[in-house]
This record gives sequence, C-alpha cells and structure tokens, in this order.
Amino acid sequence: MVYFDHDDDKPREECGVFGIYGNHEASLLTALGLHALQHRGQEACGIITFDGKRFPSERHLGMVGEHFGGDLRQRLPGHAAIGHNRYSTQGRTMLRNVQPIFADLAGGGFAVAHNGNLTNSRKLRTELVKDGAIFQSTMDTEVILHLVARSTRPRFLDRLVDALQKIEGGYALVGLTGKKLIGARDPVGLRPLILGKLGEAYVLASETCALDIIGAEFVREVENGEIVVISEKGVESHRFAAPRPSSPCVFEYVYFSRPDSIVQGRSIYQVRRRMGHQLGLETPADADVIVPVPDSGVPAALGFSEQTGIPFQMGIIRNHYVGRTFIQPTQTGRQSAVSKKHSPNRAVLDGKRVILVDDSIVRGNTSKKIVQMVREAGAKEIHFRSASPPIVNPDFYGIDMAAKSELFAAIHTHEEMVKELNVDSLGFLSVDGLYKAIGEPQRNPMQPQFADHCFTGVYPTPLVDNEHAEADKERQLSLLDDA
Amino acid sequence: MVYFDHDDDKPREECGVFGIYGNHEASLLTALGLHALQHRGQEACGIITFDGKRFPSERHLGMVGEHFGGDLRQRLPGHAAIGHNRYSTQGRTMLRNVQPIFADLAGGGFAVAHNGNLTNSRKLRTELVKDGAIFQSTMDTEVILHLVARSTRPRFLDRLVDALQKIEGGYALVGLTGKKLIGARDPVGLRPLILGKLGEAYVLASETCALDIIGAEFVREVENGEIVVISEKGVESHRFAAPRPSSPCVFEYVYFSRPDSIVQGRSIYQVRRRMGHQLGLETPADADVIVPVPDSGVPAALGFSEQTGIPFQMGIIRNHYVGRTFIQPTQTGRQSAVSKKHSPNRAVLDGKRVILVDDSIVRGNTSKKIVQMVREAGAKEIHFRSASPPIVNPDFYGIDMAAKSELFAAIHTHEEMVKELNVDSLGFLSVDGLYKAIGEPQRNPMQPQFADHCFTGVYPTPLVDNEHAEADKERQLSLLDDA
Amino acid sequence: MVYFDHDDDKPREECGVFGIYGNHEASLLTALGLHALQHRGQEACGIITFDGKRFPSERHLGMVGEHFGGDLRQRLPGHAAIGHNRYSTQGRTMLRNVQPIFADLAGGGFAVAHNGNLTNSRKLRTELVKDGAIFQSTMDTEVILHLVARSTRPRFLDRLVDALQKIEGGYALVGLTGKKLIGARDPVGLRPLILGKLGEAYVLASETCALDIIGAEFVREVENGEIVVISEKGVESHRFAAPRPSSPCVFEYVYFSRPDSIVQGRSIYQVRRRMGHQLGLETPADADVIVPVPDSGVPAALGFSEQTGIPFQMGIIRNHYVGRTFIQPTQTGRQSAVSKKHSPNRAVLDGKRVILVDDSIVRGNTSKKIVQMVREAGAKEIHFRSASPPIVNPDFYGIDMAAKSELFAAIHTHEEMVKELNVDSLGFLSVDGLYKAIGEPQRNPMQPQFADHCFTGVYPTPLVDNEHAEADKERQLSLLDDA
Amino acid sequence: MVYFDHDDDKPREECGVFGIYGNHEASLLTALGLHALQHRGQEACGIITFDGKRFPSERHLGMVGEHFGGDLRQRLPGHAAIGHNRYSTQGRTMLRNVQPIFADLAGGGFAVAHNGNLTNSRKLRTELVKDGAIFQSTMDTEVILHLVARSTRPRFLDRLVDALQKIEGGYALVGLTGKKLIGARDPVGLRPLILGKLGEAYVLASETCALDIIGAEFVREVENGEIVVISEKGVESHRFAAPRPSSPCVFEYVYFSRPDSIVQGRSIYQVRRRMGHQLGLETPADADVIVPVPDSGVPAALGFSEQTGIPFQMGIIRNHYVGRTFIQPTQTGRQSAVSKKHSPNRAVLDGKRVILVDDSIVRGNTSKKIVQMVREAGAKEIHFRSASPPIVNPDFYGIDMAAKSELFAAIHTHEEMVKELNVDSLGFLSVDGLYKAIGEPQRNPMQPQFADHCFTGVYPTPLVDNEHAEADKERQLSLLDDA
Repeated sequence: MVYFDHDDDKPREECGVFGIYGNHEASLLTALGLHALQHRGQEACGIITFDGKRFPSERHLGMVGEHFGGDLRQRLPGHAAIGHNRYSTQGRTMLRNVQPIFADLAGGGFAVAHNGNLTNSRKLRTELVKDGAIFQSTMDTEVILHLVARSTRPRFLDRLVDALQKIEGGYALVGLTGKKLIGARDPVGLRPLILGKLGEAYVLASETCALDIIGAEFVREVENGEIVVISEKGVESHRFAAPRPSSPCVFEYVYFSRPDSIVQGRSIYQVRRRMGHQLGLETPADADVIVPVPDSGVPAALGFSEQTGIPFQMGIIRNHYVGRTFIQPTQTGRQSAVSKKHSPNRAVLDGKRVILVDDSIVRGNTSKKIVQMVREAGAKEIHFRSASPPIVNPDFYGIDMAAKSELFAAIHTHEEMVKELNVDSLGFLSVDGLYKAIGEPQRNPMQPQFADHCFTGVYPTPLVDNEHAEADKERQLSLLDDA
Repeated sequence: MVYFDHDDDKPREECGVFGIYGNHEASLLTALGLHALQHRGQEACGIITFDGKRFPSERHLGMVGEHFGGDLRQRLPGHAAIGHNRYSTQGRTMLRNVQPIFADLAGGGFAVAHNGNLTNSRKLRTELVKDGAIFQSTMDTEVILHLVARSTRPRFLDRLVDALQKIEGGYALVGLTGKKLIGARDPVGLRPLILGKLGEAYVLASETCALDIIGAEFVREVENGEIVVISEKGVESHRFAAPRPSSPCVFEYVYFSRPDSIVQGRSIYQVRRRMGHQLGLETPADADVIVPVPDSGVPAALGFSEQTGIPFQMGIIRNHYVGRTFIQPTQTGRQSAVSKKHSPNRAVLDGKRVILVDDSIVRGNTSKKIVQMVREAGAKEIHFRSASPPIVNPDFYGIDMAAKSELFAAIHTHEEMVKELNVDSLGFLSVDGLYKAIGEPQRNPMQPQFADHCFTGVYPTPLVDNEHAEADKERQLSLLDDA
Repeated sequence: MVYFDHDDDKPREECGVFGIYGNHEASLLTALGLHALQHRGQEACGIITFDGKRFPSERHLGMVGEHFGGDLRQRLPGHAAIGHNRYSTQGRTMLRNVQPIFADLAGGGFAVAHNGNLTNSRKLRTELVKDGAIFQSTMDTEVILHLVARSTRPRFLDRLVDALQKIEGGYALVGLTGKKLIGARDPVGLRPLILGKLGEAYVLASETCALDIIGAEFVREVENGEIVVISEKGVESHRFAAPRPSSPCVFEYVYFSRPDSIVQGRSIYQVRRRMGHQLGLETPADADVIVPVPDSGVPAALGFSEQTGIPFQMGIIRNHYVGRTFIQPTQTGRQSAVSKKHSPNRAVLDGKRVILVDDSIVRGNTSKKIVQMVREAGAKEIHFRSASPPIVNPDFYGIDMAAKSELFAAIHTHEEMVKELNVDSLGFLSVDGLYKAIGEPQRNPMQPQFADHCFTGVYPTPLVDNEHAEADKERQLSLLDDA
Repeated sequence: MVYFDHDDDKPREECGVFGIYGNHEASLLTALGLHALQHRGQEACGIITFDGKRFPSERHLGMVGEHFGGDLRQRLPGHAAIGHNRYSTQGRTMLRNVQPIFADLAGGGFAVAHNGNLTNSRKLRTELVKDGAIFQSTMDTEVILHLVARSTRPRFLDRLVDALQKIEGGYALVGLTGKKLIGARDPVGLRPLILGKLGEAYVLASETCALDIIGAEFVREVENGEIVVISEKGVESHRFAAPRPSSPCVFEYVYFSRPDSIVQGRSIYQVRRRMGHQLGLETPADADVIVPVPDSGVPAALGFSEQTGIPFQMGIIRNHYVGRTFIQPTQTGRQSAVSKKHSPNRAVLDGKRVILVDDSIVRGNTSKKIVQMVREAGAKEIHFRSASPPIVNPDFYGIDMAAKSELFAAIHTHEEMVKELNVDSLGFLSVDGLYKAIGEPQRNPMQPQFADHCFTGVYPTPLVDNEHAEADKERQLSLLDDA
C-alpha cells in the first residue's frame, strides 16, 4: 500500500480507459495508451486481452510504468485488449476494486472497464443482491456486468443495451468479448471517449493524447448514447438512447484533460490560455509579475500575461520527485506538507506584487499554503486568480472533489475567502467567461452546452442514489473488509 | 509463486477447515488451529472474522506461520472466525481461489470454506451461469454460495439446506454469518469435521489436533448429513439428509490425519501401528532391520517390528529444510530430486536385509527412488511393505492422487511391481487387514464402513461430473487467465 | 533493481550531500534536505546519525521519498546526521556502493559521504591495497576513509587534513564522528557546499534549496580548501590548502542546481533567464513562437522571449509519470522512447516557425528526437538554441556526461550538426555570453572564474588517473561481482 | 527480517562450510552441499565462485532452498566455489555479516568462510584497527582476511600461515583465490572439515552428508593444524602448527552432526544409539514406554529401548511446519510456545509411566515445557533422561549455548532440577559413558580425546578474549547500527 502526498485541493477524475482491436501488440499499445492517460488515475491499473481462447489479465496497484514494462506480448498476448487507470486516493485500494473486471457469461467471456459514476448503482445493486447476485467488488462497473449477465435477450449486444438502459449517470466504458471491442458513452456524454485508427486497428481512448503516443489517428468522438462495436467487420454504431444534445463535463477543459489533448475539436492548451485572457479581462490587477501554480496553472497564467502585458515568470518550482508523505518536523512546524511539492523561487517573488494563477480552488487548503509560501518568499502583494468560476456544488458523476460543506467557495463569502487565503485580492473567471474561452458565445441557460453543475447547480441527469463520497459508499456497499 | 519439492507419490488432501464462535481472540485461535492442520494443505491459507459490523479478512498464498504471525487481534478482530488451509500443488494458485470466500447476501454477509469436492459442481455451475450468475473463482465452494444466494426461502438456514440438497460429493464446510458459525458434513460423512469447546466458545475443525493446540475439549464429530448452527443460543443441530450409516474416507486413517489426532474415537497413531502389526502377520520377511520411510511410515514400521521382533532403526533420515526444487546437476544425474528430502543412513543399511515400510504406494516414483537410494547405501536385500492395500482407483472427493492410468498398482501385475521397484519382495496390507487395524472385525461388503473406493472401486456417491484433475477443470471452468 | 527511462543527453551529477548538527530531529531534516536535492541523484540514498553511542544507518537503492518516509526519529535517532543522494544510471548499483560509508576507527566511528570525483583515486587505491587495506566498495569516498584510518597523526582533524592533502579532484564532503559534523570542499571549489543555520543547529548542504525546505538560513559557502568543524563549540574553520581563487563548476549554473537555489549569491533562475537574453542577442531568429524543452529549458526560453518579443508557449508537454522503460512496439517503430517523456502540443506548433530552447546538447540523441517530434507536429521551421556553449571536452570531477568521442559538438562541424539535428538553424551561447549571464564582465583567460573545461578544454587540476567512465573503473577496481 | 520459533534450549552451531574445485557446476554442487548442511545454520547463506576473471557472489538472509534454486550455473558461473550456512538466532542479522567475505588483495581476490570462533579475535581486531584497518563486518572471519592482507611475506600461502599462526580458537575455514581452493582446520581440530572427491574435482565440507548428496566419495578428514591447497596440481598439504593429538568438539557427536554423517570413522547415528544403551545401563527406570523428544532424541531413545526392552513409541509428534512465532492467546495461557513445534500423542502417553529421552538439557526451558505437555497428556510418571552429561560450562569456540549463569545443570542441584522439571526421576549420561558410546575405552584425563569443556571445564586452548555472548560482542565490536 503506497500513500501519496496528494494535493487534495484538486478535483480527481475517476479513471482513464483504453481499448484496441486488430493489432498483434494490443497489450503493449494499451500500456502506452494508459501511460499517456496516467494523469487520469495513478492508484491502480489493469489490462486484459483476448488471445483467441482465454482472457489473459493483469491488475496492479500503482502506475502503468511500474508494472507494465517488459515484454507484454508474452505476458498478455492477443490482438485485442482493454485497459484502465484508476485514480489515486489517500487511502488504500483493494485489488478486487481494480479494473478491468471480467465475467464468464453463458455465451463466453466479457471484460469491462469504465470511467465515471452511476447515479443509481446503489439502487440497482440492492435489487440485484435481493435477486441472488453475488458481487465481488464495490465498483459501479460490476453492476453493469450483472445486468448484462441477467438480461434474457439472446444477442450479446441487446443484453448490453438492456443493461445500459437501466443505468443512470455519467460514464464512458470499454468492453471486450471473444469477438468484439465495445465502446459506450452515457446518454449525456458526460465522460469522454474517442475513436482512433492505427493502420487496420481501431482504438478507443479517453483522450487524444493516448492516440498520439502510439501514432494513431483521431477518427471521431463516440457520441452520447452511442455504442460502437468493433470486430472483424469494422466499426458498427448502435444507439441505446434517444438522440439529444450532449453535455460533456466542463472539468475536462478546466483541469482533467492533458494540455496537448483535443476535445470536441478544441486544443485544451489553447482553451486554458483563453481562460487566462478572459481572466485578465475580467479580473485585472496592478502587479509586477504573473506566477502560475505549476503545472496546471501555466497556460492560463501565460494567457493572463499576454492579455495584460505583465511578465510571466516561474515564481514557484515544482518538485518532480514526490513520493510518500514525509513526517513533518515538529520544531519547524510552519513548513507544511505542500512545501515538498512546490518551492518558492525567491528571486522572482521577493519585493514583488504578484498575480498568482491557478486552475481552480476546491477546498482552499493548498491555495492557503501556496499563498503563505509566496508571502514568506517576500511577495509585497498577492493577487490570487482562479481560471475557473467558484466551485459551489459537488459532482456525482465520477469526480472526487469534496462534499458541499467542504467547498471553499460554497461556505465562504468573497470577503471571507480573501481573508482566509490572506491575499490582497481574489478573482474567479465568470461562467460566461468560461464558455467564451471554450469557444461558445455564451452559456445557453435552457440547455447548457456543458455539464457545469459544480459552478451552477444544474445537474444534467437525475441523481437517484444521491450519495457523495466514495469512502462512504464503500463502507456500506460491502461488509467485507479485506486487505 | 513458490514451487515446492513435492513428494508426488503421496495422495494430497484438499484442505483443512477451522471455525470458532464466542472467543474475543477468535482469529488468533483460528491461526493456531490452522497451524495444527497445516499438513492438510500448504498452498494457501485464509481467515475471516466478524467484528460485529463487517467481516475482516485476509487470504494469502503460503503457510499459516508465514502470514498469520503478529497480532491478529488487531488485524482480524471479532468473536467469531473461520479459516482454511489449501493443499499445495506443483503449479500456481491464484489468490482468487483461496478460501474462505465471502458474499454480501440480501440478508447480510456470508463467508464459507470447505474441505472436499463436489461431484456435480460443473453441472450446477453451468446452470447457474446460464441463469446469470457471475463466478469469481473456479472453486466448488462458490457453487454453494450461489445456491444459497438464489434460494427463495426466507430463513438463512433453509437457504443453506436448499443449497446442500442440490450438491453431491464429499465435503466438510464451515460458514460464518453476522450471527452464526455453521458446520456441515456431506450425507456420507466422507470428509471429517468435529465439534469442540473452549470455555464458553465452540470450535469446529477437521481434526482433533486443532483442538489440542488451543486447549479445547473434544465434544463430538459432526454427523454425516448434519448442519450444526452455533450462536448465542449455543449449538443447534439440523439434518439436511436422511440418516444413513456414515462412510468416512479411509485415507484419513492411512495418511491424511496427524498421528496424534483421534478419529471416530480411534487414535490414528495406534491404528497405523496396528496396520504394521497386521502387515507383519500378512507379509512377513526374513530380515535384519525394519526401516520406515519417514515420517509417515514410522508408526506402521514400529508395529511391524513389534509383531516380528525384527529391530526398528531410522535407516532413512528426513531433511527438515526442504524448499524450492534444486536444479539437478547434469554430471551427477544419478542423484534424483528425492534425495534432497530423504538421506540414507548407511550405518544402518550397509550389508543388511532391510524391510522398508511406507504408508502407501501411489505412482511408485518415490518408492523407486527410495529403494535405489537404500540399495546404493549397501542394503543386501530390500523387502518393501505398504501399510495400505494396492491403490487401483482414483478419488473424486477432494483427494488429488493421480489418474487411474498413473496408479502404480492399477497398471502393473505384482511381478511387474517387484521388478519396477527393484525389490526382493513386495507386500501390501489386505483390505480386511486394514479394516481390522482400524478396529472393525471385517469389511461389510453390503455397506462398507469406510469409503475405500481407491482400493475396491466401490464409490459411496454418484459421480456426476466424473472429472479427474483439478488442473483440467480449472482450464475449462473459467476463460480468465490471471496472475 | 529499477531501470529508469533516462534522458541520456543530459549531464548527470554525482550526488547531493547534507549534514546537520544539534537538532533532535536530525534524520528527519536530513531526509527533507535530501528530498530537496533529489535532482542531484536518484539512484540511491542513505542517512547515518549518531545517537550518543552508536551510528544508526540506512542505505537504500531508490529515492528518498520511497524509503525515508515514516518516523525516522525512531529508526534513526540522534542530534547529528549526514545523508547522500547518488545519481541514477541505466545499470545496476550495488548496495555496497551507496553512501554514507562508515568505519570504526581506533578513535571511534567516522562516517562520510561526498559529491564529486577524485582524479588520483585509482593510484591511491592501488597503493593502499599493496599496503594491506581491504576495500568494501569501489567508491572514491572509501579512499579518503582509508587515508584517515592510516594517518599516524594523533588528532582526528589532522588525520583528515593528511588525507585531503593526498587526494586530487573535485569534491564536497560531509563527515560525522561521535563529536563533530565536518564539511570540506576541494582546493578549487569545484563541487558546491554551503553552510546554514536552523535555530541552534548548523546545516551543510549542496544547495540552498535544501536549507529552504527545512526553513534554515543561509550563512555562507564553505570555501575552497576549507574544512568546517561543527561541534558543541559551534563552527570552526580550518584550511588544508593554500588560499587561491575558487573555480566552481559552471555546470551548476547551466544545469545541475535547482532554479530556486542561490549559488555564489546569484539566483540560478535569473542566471538562466539571462542566458536566454544573451542567447537572444547572440543568435536571433525570425520565428512565431519560442518553445522550451521542459523543464530545464524554461528559464532560458522565457529570457529569449523577453529579449526578442517572440511569444513563449509550452509547445512540449512533459509527462510527470515516467517509470520503467517501455518496450517499443515494432509496428510503430518511428515513435521513439523519448516520446514517453515529452509530448508535442500540436496546437502550439502546427504551421509555426519555432525556436526550440534547451539548456545544452551533449550526445545529441534527445535533441534529434525532440526536433523530429516537433516537426511531425507540424512546425514549419525549427531553430534550435542551446543556452550553453558547445560541449567539446569530457569532465573528470564527477559529472557523468560522455566520452569525447560521443560529444555531439566535439565530433561534428556546425553544418553537420544542423544536418544531423535536421533543423533550420542552430545556435549556441558563447563562452563570454555565458560569463556575462552569470554576472562576470567576461572570462579571465589567465584564471578562469569557473571550471569551464567542457567548453574550453582548460582543466583546473591535474588529471592523475585520467579515466573516463565510472563503469569502466568499477569493472577494474574490484574483482568481486555481487548482486 | 524473519524471526523463527527457536528452541532455545538447544546448543547452536556457528555454521557449515563447503568448497569445490574442478567442476563446471561448482555453484550448483555447493548449493546442494549447503542444503545438506542446512541443520548447521539457517540464518543466512552465501556462495562465491571464480569464473576465470572475477568472483561472482550471492549472499542472502534465509535458507539455501529459498535463494539458491534456479540455474546457478548462469548466476554464479565458474569451476570453483565456496559456500557457507550461518546459524539462526532470535534476532536480526545484517547482510554485512553473511559469509563468504571477499577482499581484493594486492595479489588478487581472496574469499573466505569459516565455521567456529576465534578466542583472540577481539584483541587482534583492536590492534588491526589501531593500525588503520577498516572492518566491514563484526565477523571473526574478517580478522583472518586483514591478517592475510597485511602479511609482508611474498607467497600467498605464507601470508595465510602468518595469519593462522596469529589466531587462537576453534575453526574450520574454506578459502578461494583465482587459482586455489583452500581448507584449514585449527591446531586442536575443534571444528570439523573433511576432504572428498567427485570425479576429478575435490570437495571440502563440514560433514560427510554433504558429500553424499552430490555423490562424492570421502577421502579423509583435514587434520588439525593442516592447510590443504587444491589447485590444478591436485591436493597439497601444509602444516601451520606443530603436530599434536586432536581434540574435536564432542558436541558433534551429541547434537550437531546429522545422524547419517560419519565423523572420525564413526556413524553418528550408531554413536547416539550407543549413548542410549549406555544411558539405559547407567540410569534405568521402571516404565511402560520410552518416548524420544523428536527428532534429535530418537537414536538414543531407540538405544535405551534396545538395552532395557521397554517399548519405544512416538509419544511426541513434531510439527514440520514451523515458521514465525505465534502470538500467545491470553485466555489459554497455559499453552506455551513450544506446543506449536511438539504435540503430545495422548494415545501413547495416557496412564503410562514414561521415560522421556532427549539429547541434552541446556537452559531447561524446553524440557520443562515438554514435561508439562506430557503430563497434561496423562502420563502417570515421567523419567527424564539426557543422552549427554550435565552441561555446566559455556563454550567459546562457536557454539551459541548460554552463559554459565543460564545453564540449568550449572545453577541447580540434582534435587532442584528434579523439582524444577517436575519429573519423577532425572538421569544424565556420565562423561565416561559418553566416551564409551563414542568408542573410547574411557576419557584420558591428561589429554582428553575430545573437547568436552562444557561437561568438564577443561578447555583445549587459551581463552584470550573470554567473552560470552555473540550479541554482546557485536554491540561492542562496531559502532555501526545498520538494518
């Protein structure tokens, strides 16, 4: 069990997925794809292939590069594979909760991995257990597996449609049978899933950066409510939900996706830079230097600098060697844990009026520590700028952020926040500014183009279970307490 | 994965079980009990407890002493526990096939571990999968779990009875719910299970030696076809099968049980000593010394010596430090792998006429090597004696022995065996001699007092699946190929 | 043994050192200090303390955060400690070559760790072995230990002076006895060592960033040819070499030191930014965007942008999750290993004239791959700029760079380099430009202010052994071949 | 670090040694030889070879079978090898104290391993350290290494003689250079060393059982005060001490050597059986059954039975699966730790008058627990017999037994012992009886044929250091406290 020194002030995504069909190095390419998606989850990783007869599988706690080096073609042979990265928490994860998960169905093997969260999984799980189902994990994904196993329809695809029509929430899933690679995206399109091509092989992935690393071409996004079935016959498309405008999660733009990924045709890097432009317009400040909180604040800080003409400098250095949490020396208690990840660059900060740019503020703890660190390094004034609007509502679709009672902007007034952070001024990007940066003229209040409930409280789907923290759910979902 | 230098000429039991209810050190006592039962399985071990709310659990590859040292009261708290030892094979075992296994049923948690083998598990499994059940292991035990989960009867006990009435084979199982410790033994009583008492607590175990190690008293054997339910109210007894004479596996007397255990009121040590008496009567030989193949041949060799007056000597030394298989030096190829476990004591053997006593002959490979070793140490004559009758039929109730085509006595005439073993004479105990040694006047051919099919071909239950090797079954039972 | 995906085109430092005297959390503060110095060596780490009686010690392969979490105050108690980070290589390191190393001398225990390289260690070692010394490692450091042990002078300090007067080369060492913390720097001052203060405790470290992380104040640099002795009496200074102008290694400015460190009163970040200014002046180019090779190229690229007005953008994304080397898929062979560490940000590069800024070019392999990657991402023109002069000579003082025959600039003409790199233009900072950026009016050819032999061929000390690669030396230094 | 459930009532040998010259599978044969010698030390093991150029080496904590499986021909190539088993303690052992140890001498590499203890090592070590030697371990063996390194004589053999003439104590050593395999035995011949032959190859080993396992022939014992040098030229013999009668340690007969080994032409098994005969003559008792404490008490118990006609039975069962110590349940405190290694066989003991036979009594703790266990199993009378005389003096030659103040027979009268053990009678073999059993007419008081100081107080060599416990020595020998 490894405990990481997490920055718990960042939202955390529940996972990245990858799948490939039609390449004899399927597991190797999946490992590379998952490596490119490592930012979406560092807690655990798994790959399963189909070798023509059985489903070789490996699941591990830890990161892709720690476990999937060496010659995967021998360990995980086959022309088709799916893989998964799981996000990292402070606590332990049991191996039984690592994906992909597998079932021997009457018609053959079926493996599945997904990114996202079902909002009615608890309800469905309770019904299934009443009906004699035995769960081996506490993952939402397993609900889908049981629904498929119990569908009475003869065709596998129809059984999957049966299952997907019963579940609610935001998800992108990849599945593997002895004959097919399958991708599906929830009816709203909350979680991302794209289709790519590498020679004759087809690829599914959470982000385009996973295509880039293996040299695959982007084909298109999987649509909301769509199932793509990839087999010897090529790609087939099926719908399991009526067409409607999609409403992808806006946090892919704000924080989750890698800056070099392209989402809905837009460069994440350029969107974030435009957030900085917009932020410079909306919340200017008289200052000597613009300093990003690295690495996620860099593009917005550059945009802010371009907009305002104030010089951009690396006033905070990020330590690349972050491992286990260090015990805090008691004598020098003023130094907090965050100082091991970020170091102040006094030569840039001392005596300066500083605009600090970060992508967002969640609980506010990290922001406070960074402000204190910058102040101790001699900054004369600190103007904190968040490249996203105030986060005032929790997410229920797979983002592990915080309960409402812990959200900094939900429980404080602007004045309180300024005082708590100990800054000279504080500015957030407006919701409309965010939409503009993404490339929309403005937010459509009747039918928002993005799932922006964390900023606005408007949720794109019903919330059946309405539970909050993964930790709570797990305690209640299973009575088993294994190591 | 650890590979042991197995003596593949011995039958191997499928497991030992232990359970306790009503002691605040339940996990600790379970670890000790499993340690005493270690001879029944060295491949893997597991313990699960109920702490009043959840079911803390640990399952490991390897032996009890390697994993369950330290303070189990903290790691596995609770007043009730069950545990399991799994037998050791040449090949790998997946953690998913380590018991006890657990399910969150609609009525609460249920953990189960069993010793034995179902003879219709494949058939039941296929039906369950067709009906939407998802199996997480390839173990028979999980079939029982699914049958309980799917029973429509309201009371837990009735659901368990439902399940047990559907299965065939030989088994002893221990189960744990939030309220009860459960023990059950198959209708024929093939696999052993006893009830003991430690202060106010009740104990279930495969053998009495597990009671001795914790200072518990023997109460009685669980009967064939009986379920015992231990709870706050004490012990209740239920029957799930019509009463009939039991027919316990005779190999508990011949090989499996520890010499200090008491089975059906009989000391295993004394039974084996009497086998030696009987063997001395039936197959005497003119010799200078009686030498056991240690340790299992010792009691019979002592009995043989007492009967015949020929001195007993330790002519073969057993090495206590046996680990991984060593690579065989090529130059000295005559030395075989077995020589690392047994060493000849030349001072006893050289120039002597030797009676070698072993408990049984299965494939004959080990016997051949031992004979060769004794001969190279200077023995003038070797008279091989097996303290059990010729093994000519395979077992299907949880003993991993060999296919019929590999059984030495099944495929050779007496003359061929003498020649193959390279001995001066060869003798087996007779079936009636075996019964006499155990304390029966003779075998009742209409209703044999013991399951002696390996010697006689008379199987006590129908053989539905009729499959032989665990390895084969596993390959076919699941398409998953995990590490 | 862990193999990292190294960027073998960067020079690699031989280590970081840290020491503290007079704080009851000495080991904890040493772990933090080493963590801040992790960039100086990732291969192995060690800490030794003095607990008033014995010298508790731990040495590990791997990084500080992997091994020195948890409560070090219990594992490594004491008020004084020294620690060491060792640099990372492609190959294996034996634990016997991890520092600090320790000896029981007649007068008591002595532990030592050093950064740097002796240029006459082979000669000294041979003499010592002839005289009966037994070496336990192949490290230079152990030569010092033996010289101290064999000195016939009565005072420990005199024995140390004896030893230091026999060795040649560049080094910064920290030592620990039962009474003293010791720091020493070679007569030329090649390797850095600074003195700090934390409350009543004194600290020695390779860089100021190690003071910052524990909240200590910078006192002064240890001088070239100086020994500082820290004890209950405070700090004493001794000289073991005649005073002369120092000549610190210029690569601390170019690459080794962390950007937030202060060396000789100069901010490393600002020096590198001025290298970018100077580079912009000396080698301008008509372009659309300036892109750093992250992270080490960022400050110079910012300086180049400030000087030229061409916008700075993050056109290359650095992957933070770099672990073991991945096997390269054969089908997609064009993708090279480096692509797993750096990803092109196509949105910034496509169709653009790009100025790529890196800190240096050593072998050229990484530069070639990065250029190819940027070109494949659509760059119209690529102008490569190195923020340091051409590297044309090897180092012998502890920098693992390359043999002369592998140095890109040593074996190619400018035209060849342009062609090999496949760039539109190539520019290096001039040696005088480098001096200016550091803050000197110009290089003093009679007495260069810095050890700049890699650029100029002027070595500051005699090269006795004149050997090149650590690997070679090791093969010859000991006949032992352990794991 | 693994802690074993030791029987601390047994003396413990300091190690087994093995060496071979002239076989291309040298490391493999060494591993097998060490496996046969595993009873002489289970704490750690090591093998070093010479491959024609370097000395491949592996040293591990734990047993031979855990570490030296697999293909050693690749890992440890070469035609010559030496190896070592280290005995097992309750506490930790540092890897730096695992043998063989190696030094790069001026003339080439030299590896050495030894069994035994120097009685003047502390004195020599202190002198060597004063003279500038740096020790890497706290092992006596390293003293020899330094003495060889510092000898000024030109020939290697003379340097070794120099070293051996300086040391006192009991030892058997094996050494390896690039040209030679060396064996040496102390002037008194305390520790055993034999010479064997396997084809063209020569073998050195602590006991003949190590020859048997590889099929080698016994040639002769190495004499006391002899150095044998094995090279391409065959075996040469040298003396480093004046001839005198040898005085081997009598505990090889009593306890250390394996029953199938031949020492000085005598079968250990038969000697122990005769000890039982003698014990039966000297200390008869009226009883129903003779029960050995297995395994070491078995031959003497058989001999006792043969002498007296009282039947021999296995009344105590030894558990073969002993690993880490289990935490003792608090409720059932009467059960003691020893019960996990030995179990009573109630069917043999209940209602019987029992003669318990063990090889020796050291501290008496185990004996007390076994007596209690046998009594609780229903024995009516217990007559304890020790097959060796009372141990009243400590050893200083490599046996880890106890300080005098802990020796049961040294601090109690016969009556006290009877009471403490809670037995009906207690008998020890006489010293003369021991000599008779070995085959001597009687002990020669002027020149005892064996080192029997533990029984008689007559030590065969001067005791220079006169220190007792290894633990104490280690604490003082080095100030380093590493993991």
